[in-house]
Amino acid sequence: MKKPILLTLFLIISAKMCFAQTINNDISETIIALEKVALDKWNRGDPSGYLDLSAEDVTYFDPSTEQCIEGLDNLKKYYKPMEGQINVSKYEMLNPKVTALNDMAVLTFSLNSYKADKVFKWNCTEVYRLDSNGQWKIIHTHWSFFMEP
Amino acid sequence: MKKPILLTLFLIISAKMCFAQTINNDISETIIALEKVALDKWNRGDPSGYLDLSAEDVTYFDPSTEQCIEGLDNLKKYYKPMEGQINVSKYEMLNPKVTALNDMAVLTFSLNSYKADKVFKWNCTEVYRLDSNGQWKIIHTHWSFFMEP
Repeated sequence: MKKPILLTLFLIISAKMCFAQTINNDISETIIALEKVALDKWNRGDPSGYLDLSAEDVTYFDPSTEQCIEGLDNLKKYYKPMEGQINVSKYEMLNPKVTALNDMAVLTFSLNSYKADKVFKWNCTEVYRLDSNGQWKIIHTHWSFFMEP
Repeated sequence: MKKPILLTLFLIISAKMCFAQTINNDISETIIALEKVALDKWNRGDPSGYLDLSAEDVTYFDPSTEQCIEGLDNLKKYYKPMEGQINVSKYEMLNPKVTALNDMAVLTFSLNSYKADKVFKWNCTEVYRLDSNGQWKIIHTHWSFFMEP
């Protein structure tokens, strides 16, 4: 009887591991895909992708924010003057990585943004939360420049 | 019978709200206290506070990292040349805010660091995870400079 029991246990554990892996891969892929849709819009001067993706209680840092912007309404006001002002010809999302735990996930990546012959090097942190409708929403954004030493 | 039932319901709901508030306040206070201990050490040239507080799978951005540093061993190597090199005479942690959900929490704050008569203005994001021993550990750090427009 021992062998079938061990085999069954092995199969159950393997199945569980595969399932967990699939879930984690799914979360990573989902979150990176959501971010890319918002980023594509942003690069054409349209902040609506990020605004739609952000939660009501989102907090936000970038190099121009002396302190954290708190709440979606304040983020909308902050983005308003940037509408139509951004035109990135090409970008590269480098090394995207998602660390997920239950209903929260952290996405980190670096970004090369090309405008004419200039490249801007960014680092980005996005914290996502799964809301009660099963939608991942950004609850915190942090953009910063890589500064050559 | 209606009044006592309503009163009981009210008391149960109030107690639950107080309890939830206490838990959230506790998490905020705990995390801000942990961060301050690490920051105090850092400001005296000692990175060990942050290293002890970081998880094995920590990821890390600051203005000098072109891409994310991954893992505690790589963070230790990165911090090694900074040991004894930092001497901040005074700092102000501004607007610390913790958003917690189950076993993860995001701490954001701004920081004024004073060295002689200079002030350096930082923004910081720390993502904490509660480990199986009940300890909060940093799984992601993002430091950046506020840049005057």
